[in-house]
Amino acid sequence: MGLREDALSYHRKGKIGLEIRTKLESRADLTLAYTPGVAEVSREIARNKEAVYDYTWKWNSVAIISDGTRVLGLGDVGPEAALPVMEGKAMLLKRFGGVDAIPLCIGTKNEEEIIAFAKAVSPTFGGILLEDIESPKCFDVETKLKRMLDIPVFHDDQHGTAIVALAGLINALKIAEKKKNHVKVVVNGAGAAGIAIAKLLIEYGVKDITVLDSKGAICNARDDLEQYKREFSLVLPHMVCGRLENVINGADVFIGASAAGALRRDWTLNMAEGAIVFALSNPVPEITLEQARAGGAAVYGSGRSDAPNQINNVLAFPGVFRGALDVRARAIDEGMKLAAAGAIAGCVGEKEIAGGKIVPDPLDPLVAKRVAEAVSKKARENGLARI
Amino acid sequence: MGLREDALSYHRKGKIGLEIRTKLESRADLTLAYTPGVAEVSREIARNKEAVYDYTWKWNSVAIISDGTRVLGLGDVGPEAALPVMEGKAMLLKRFGGVDAIPLCIGTKNEEEIIAFAKAVSPTFGGILLEDIESPKCFDVETKLKRMLDIPVFHDDQHGTAIVALAGLINALKIAEKKKNHVKVVVNGAGAAGIAIAKLLIEYGVKDITVLDSKGAICNARDDLEQYKREFSLVLPHMVCGRLENVINGADVFIGASAAGALRRDWTLNMAEGAIVFALSNPVPEITLEQARAGGAAVYGSGRSDAPNQINNVLAFPGVFRGALDVRARAIDEGMKLAAAGAIAGCVGEKEIAGGKIVPDPLDPLVAKRVAEAVSKKARENGLARI
Repeated sequence: MGLREDALSYHRKGKIGLEIRTKLESRADLTLAYTPGVAEVSREIARNKEAVYDYTWKWNSVAIISDGTRVLGLGDVGPEAALPVMEGKAMLLKRFGGVDAIPLCIGTKNEEEIIAFAKAVSPTFGGILLEDIESPKCFDVETKLKRMLDIPVFHDDQHGTAIVALAGLINALKIAEKKKNHVKVVVNGAGAAGIAIAKLLIEYGVKDITVLDSKGAICNARDDLEQYKREFSLVLPHMVCGRLENVINGADVFIGASAAGALRRDWTLNMAEGAIVFALSNPVPEITLEQARAGGAAVYGSGRSDAPNQINNVLAFPGVFRGALDVRARAIDEGMKLAAAGAIAGCVGEKEIAGGKIVPDPLDPLVAKRVAEAVSKKARENGLARI
Repeated sequence: MGLREDALSYHRKGKIGLEIRTKLESRADLTLAYTPGVAEVSREIARNKEAVYDYTWKWNSVAIISDGTRVLGLGDVGPEAALPVMEGKAMLLKRFGGVDAIPLCIGTKNEEEIIAFAKAVSPTFGGILLEDIESPKCFDVETKLKRMLDIPVFHDDQHGTAIVALAGLINALKIAEKKKNHVKVVVNGAGAAGIAIAKLLIEYGVKDITVLDSKGAICNARDDLEQYKREFSLVLPHMVCGRLENVINGADVFIGASAAGALRRDWTLNMAEGAIVFALSNPVPEITLEQARAGGAAVYGSGRSDAPNQINNVLAFPGVFRGALDVRARAIDEGMKLAAAGAIAGCVGEKEIAGGKIVPDPLDPLVAKRVAEAVSKKARENGLARI
């Protein structure tokens, strides 16, 4: 069978369900799980709202909220077609992070309604994972929810991608023997992923970074920038103008979060020696491994599972939420994201790095554990932990 | 330990979680469960929205939505304190109906916001169970959602209670040798449960029914009735005025959905011979078993697990949703509710009925199965089944 048939067969009747965690066999069990016993628990929580973390699933539950407007490479396919993707995320959160995540694909694309929905459901969950919401709406949805809620709100398409890209870069810089504060980085793509990657790299200490949309570099000379790009330009430590074929000259790092084939081999030839190329467009990268190598790239990463160094969000979000839930975090801040990236990078041994490997395998069970520990620790240090 | 300590201990870390239903061990599994395989499934559903029932959990999932405004006997305790109760409902739906139900306790009491929330989340679920929403808001929330959505919307505090009360009444009438079209029924309490019980009894064929709120019988002479009570009065086949101590005279059936101690023993003495008394107030009934017997009642049922004939919603909702989901029902109509009540009543054998038993044991695994079959069948007959 082909991929389509295999995938449809694998998905028949869905991938997830509900698990009962306590014994429910006898009348005595029923008395505890339901009336009258459960009333005692309700009373306890009514008296002390924080006890909801002790006596319900809130300590371990995450809502995966999507309006289905930007699903994988498919675009605005709607909430029903987004559901198998969110079930997949839920499986990964459970499998790698032990998190109970519930897909909530919603039938509204309206920004205020998405925010109202997430706010309304927040008492039930220990965190909110925003997924596959189109940009620029995704920025405002996340920013406003973070301001309103005292549980973590995390837009995976931004921060999951950014964390794993940074993790890969940390190790790639070792291979290329370059320093974060000296490298020239070009990020192609100014959507959710591109902007988030650039912001986290700046937070990490990268000084020279240029971000491009389809019309060229985001810079002062542009009068056609959308508001979120204008706002982003204010955090840029350094600004150049031009198109990709110009700004790529002499660059140490190219990170693509744009579209298939956006990086030409001959442009890669103009990059600095020991060039690092991350071609994250999915399913078809900005440049293939072969073309990048032919263009002189020393390190290559992509979103593909059939090439080495798969820059995959699954390396980040299960551990990030595990770590946040473990300390009942009020939020996930920049420090926690940097800690997550460092932990992912740290899962690759020096020998493996010397052999060209920059990120761990997506199925490596150690990754989420190490990420969770790093995220919990940082949350405590930054005063964001409830326990 | 006492009930409180036992219940708190039983609830530690919650009662439910997420279950992974498919294999996720190898890279090949990951390729199917997540990218690139899942994109094929998304495409399939984007082409044909109904395929969401085939390839996601929608075929088996129910959202349990509550604003926490009327939780058990506790009242408006809020969404956090409502969560253990909804987790309990979710367990029961899974245990008896095999349904994957997800508690969604929401932080808004606003009617329009509750409706918007349920509407938004509806693409993810095969049905919506409304729980513990205060009256009269619950009536409008349900009515409006039923009009908007093409999946079942079922307010358990109304219809679950009504179905089980009717089931009990069907068998009680056999014991008392009374006919549904000849009995005089008094329903004390005009909240969600009382109104729904009365409506379903009328649908069943009861002709003489009086419903009372705290000020007396709902009748034409009252000028203090809230809108939903006025509207309800229009469906009454027969109308009397007066207070409980008056209208109870000569009644064959008393159904209490009101408050502890509302029925006095000496009033019971004035009921017809072979009186049927259902005292459903929880945790303390309108009249105790002993007092009702002393007052001449031939059949007694209550909400209590320590008395015979526990009129418990758990006999209805797991089977009702199992049956509705099995045929991908667009709604749950009156016929399906009557079918559910008949199926529950049919789970008690003639011999048991002769011995005074009117409803099956809440832990009897056969009940949900029989209810589901009856509900599926009726949905098909009434043109509400998708398959």
